[in-house]
Amino acid sequence: MTTSTRSAGRQAPEELFAEVCDRARHAAVLASVESLLGWDEQTYLPERAGGYRAEQAAALATLVHRERTDPAYGERLARLADGPLATSGPPEVSGTIALLQRDFAKQARLPPRLVEELARTCVEAQQAWRSARAASSWNQLQPWLERVFALKREQASCQLPGRDPYDALMDDYEPGATWQAVALLFERLRAEIVRLVAACVASGRRPDDAVLRRDYPRAAQERFVREVAARIGFDFQRGRLDTTAHPFCSTMGPDDCRITTRWDERFLPTALHGVLHEAGHGLYEQGLPRDWFGLPPGQAASLGIHESQSRLWENLVGRSPAFWEWCFPVARSAFPAALADADAASVQRALMAVSPSFIRVEADEVTYNLHVMMRFDLERALVQGTLAVADLRDAWNERFERDFGMRPPSDADGVLQDIHWSAGLVGYFPTYSLGNIFAAQLIHAARERLPGLDGEIAAGRFDGLLDWLRMHVHAHGRLLESEPLVERATGMPVSERWLVDSLRSRYASAHGL
Amino acid sequence: MTTSTRSAGRQAPEELFAEVCDRARHAAVLASVESLLGWDEQTYLPERAGGYRAEQAAALATLVHRERTDPAYGERLARLADGPLATSGPPEVSGTIALLQRDFAKQARLPPRLVEELARTCVEAQQAWRSARAASSWNQLQPWLERVFALKREQASCQLPGRDPYDALMDDYEPGATWQAVALLFERLRAEIVRLVAACVASGRRPDDAVLRRDYPRAAQERFVREVAARIGFDFQRGRLDTTAHPFCSTMGPDDCRITTRWDERFLPTALHGVLHEAGHGLYEQGLPRDWFGLPPGQAASLGIHESQSRLWENLVGRSPAFWEWCFPVARSAFPAALADADAASVQRALMAVSPSFIRVEADEVTYNLHVMMRFDLERALVQGTLAVADLRDAWNERFERDFGMRPPSDADGVLQDIHWSAGLVGYFPTYSLGNIFAAQLIHAARERLPGLDGEIAAGRFDGLLDWLRMHVHAHGRLLESEPLVERATGMPVSERWLVDSLRSRYASAHGL
Repeated sequence: MTTSTRSAGRQAPEELFAEVCDRARHAAVLASVESLLGWDEQTYLPERAGGYRAEQAAALATLVHRERTDPAYGERLARLADGPLATSGPPEVSGTIALLQRDFAKQARLPPRLVEELARTCVEAQQAWRSARAASSWNQLQPWLERVFALKREQASCQLPGRDPYDALMDDYEPGATWQAVALLFERLRAEIVRLVAACVASGRRPDDAVLRRDYPRAAQERFVREVAARIGFDFQRGRLDTTAHPFCSTMGPDDCRITTRWDERFLPTALHGVLHEAGHGLYEQGLPRDWFGLPPGQAASLGIHESQSRLWENLVGRSPAFWEWCFPVARSAFPAALADADAASVQRALMAVSPSFIRVEADEVTYNLHVMMRFDLERALVQGTLAVADLRDAWNERFERDFGMRPPSDADGVLQDIHWSAGLVGYFPTYSLGNIFAAQLIHAARERLPGLDGEIAAGRFDGLLDWLRMHVHAHGRLLESEPLVERATGMPVSERWLVDSLRSRYASAHGL
Repeated sequence: MTTSTRSAGRQAPEELFAEVCDRARHAAVLASVESLLGWDEQTYLPERAGGYRAEQAAALATLVHRERTDPAYGERLARLADGPLATSGPPEVSGTIALLQRDFAKQARLPPRLVEELARTCVEAQQAWRSARAASSWNQLQPWLERVFALKREQASCQLPGRDPYDALMDDYEPGATWQAVALLFERLRAEIVRLVAACVASGRRPDDAVLRRDYPRAAQERFVREVAARIGFDFQRGRLDTTAHPFCSTMGPDDCRITTRWDERFLPTALHGVLHEAGHGLYEQGLPRDWFGLPPGQAASLGIHESQSRLWENLVGRSPAFWEWCFPVARSAFPAALADADAASVQRALMAVSPSFIRVEADEVTYNLHVMMRFDLERALVQGTLAVADLRDAWNERFERDFGMRPPSDADGVLQDIHWSAGLVGYFPTYSLGNIFAAQLIHAARERLPGLDGEIAAGRFDGLLDWLRMHVHAHGRLLESEPLVERATGMPVSERWLVDSLRSRYASAHGL
């Protein structure tokens, strides 16, 4: 035993806990700089600066990994886990110790070489993806995806050896989830959605969405969506909104949450519902316990929970009649020409059109889940070794035809459409539909506890709902996993039934069923 | 001797050189991320995110310093400096070894605690400066400047002990310069400028600049200045232009040079000459040997040389009759209303108005140097201990009245106007007037070697001048210090006479003298 360890051994547990937290916070500072590199890459990086950005990302990823796996930190953490706070400390303390230990073990099993290579390859592969998609050339992307999936399989076998490799990857986004459980939930959801989509299409009464496809000038859209985002509670003093090809939300500090959007001057929901979605993520980030930034009580529970927040605002609020009661006059003053002959009901109805389409991010609320579940099956097969990357394009097209009854006219409209795989985000897709499931269950519970909710929303007051989410979801940080969190918030076990009920009741009537 | 040192001792010198360069390049990658943090802070950081940004900047500064002072790196560098390449290698190799060793020694003498504290304090002090300036409250800034100057004095005594503390600080920006030599050069320049300003003012024939003060809509300005910057050679695929309160140029990669500007819809030169200035910096950065990025042959020689490039494009090109022959039609098509009744000569003449004013960054080309020389004297007194920060405001106002014949109406128009001191940039101001001196001498030489230069400029062809600068200034990187660089480029020792001649001939005639 060295002197420093011995003297450290005499530390009061509280002091040791503070020291461990300081170190974890320091790693979080560096990780937040990594986020800034990523945000800047998507928003403002000059065209030819991508090569060096990959160097920068790799260097930061290596440093973050080194901080997170520092043996002296691990030793302190182990001592803390053996001490009294781990078992009888306040819940946020014992929970922090358990989660930091879990994180440390996962990180420590990753070789630094792999971390560095993953970071660099994923930045380069994203750049290749951009060119490949622009050229609609699967051949350009295929070798990059081969490298990425090889590295991800290696990551899986290192970080959680003995686990199914797909579960090991999904654990980064949805801790505790298993593919079997997710597949089961999705099977039930899929059957219902296929039935609902077929009924909607067969009805021949798809709501007319022409009102959404008029001239919506970009400058007016910018003012309008900022007003809406601020109204639902997004704090622009602690965040911002920029433009990117692929919208996202990224946090690079306790008071620095940045969302992005695309703009379509001929289709209002691209930006409006895109921003409601990203601002929903942002509200969660801004609602996490600020003083615990960088530590488990200040971190998101999972991406499924994250997605539940974005989907809730985008769809369950943003497509509701109550929301449009408030929002329509605001929209009409922003777009007097486009909305001259419209009313709240006609815009809301237009937002309920269901029709199969090729691009996930442009899909309606119902078919969206079919896109996600298909990717879940494909990426799982790639990771588990039952599908080769070389066969992915064909597998995509066949599966798409089975699920949607049509074939993508080009690879850009098919296998090349998403950034995720080239960005190394494997095991991430299922969180989108999990989010939909959680969101429906959460808002169902919120409506029961807050009987005046729709009236408040119709009056443009969103703080009742936001406070409820803050208290029952945001406040827990990462101390509860998704399922216990949703169960505690709603008083019911997690089930797809609230999503199915919600989609069925809202879309059936919109399609005159 | 450890095994690794012994085995390293058997390395071929070229291999050792490559290893040392790799390590220096790695430190440069981290330093470039630090630049991104700084750029983002000025451009897009949310209002309340400043506190955490200071943490991030401090963490990165510490890491960069740790990389630059790694003893294993220092040991290899020392071995290299004792080896054959240091004396008989090609000039860029021997020069790199000498400069890296000099950098290492300076860095290694700075305690990590001081590096971290400086980084954090300077971000916080800049934030305090923004509020203080907005409130025009010297009292708000004073305690921050006290902390900054105390830290800078400590830095001076650590990094170059035994040197005059002001020289020690100036060495970061203008290697090899001494305050005595600068003061001497400035004394001569000052006498001439005071005389010229007095004559211009007394002439009563200040050019009318009303044409510059018409309506110049921002959107049109944006398109116009981008066109001008691209035309003189700024590569927007390797850089970008954004908006900030305080314009600057910052490089965060070999293909990532970012410039910023302010906009004034009632005064065209704010953005136009601001962008010519920053693009001049950018042309230098983009012209440095790309393959040596992060190493001395790929670094700027000094800030004085940097400023010579920005001033040359801003003033010696951007206020010349030849430039306006090309630029006027471009400007008129951008601003048809404002310039309907103007011509090239009237706009160019308007740009030659001299009159004493309070704000350095708005000063004309002639009085600008008075602003700089005053700051040089004040900051030198602060560092050398003959002036206390508590007395700075009064000293500023008195000196200003002596030099300009008027007193600042507020501290915002006086001692609070510049970001430099709160940002820890002490010893930086003299590089502005050194840059003017170098610029005048360089363009004088370029005109002699390129007889058709003004004709080319009048035709909108700037590559002749840029190529000459690339070859005689940019290509040397940091391998020559300012004075030898200018001497070699121009064939003449450095002197203020070319600046004095240039100002006198251009401004005397513009004021009918």
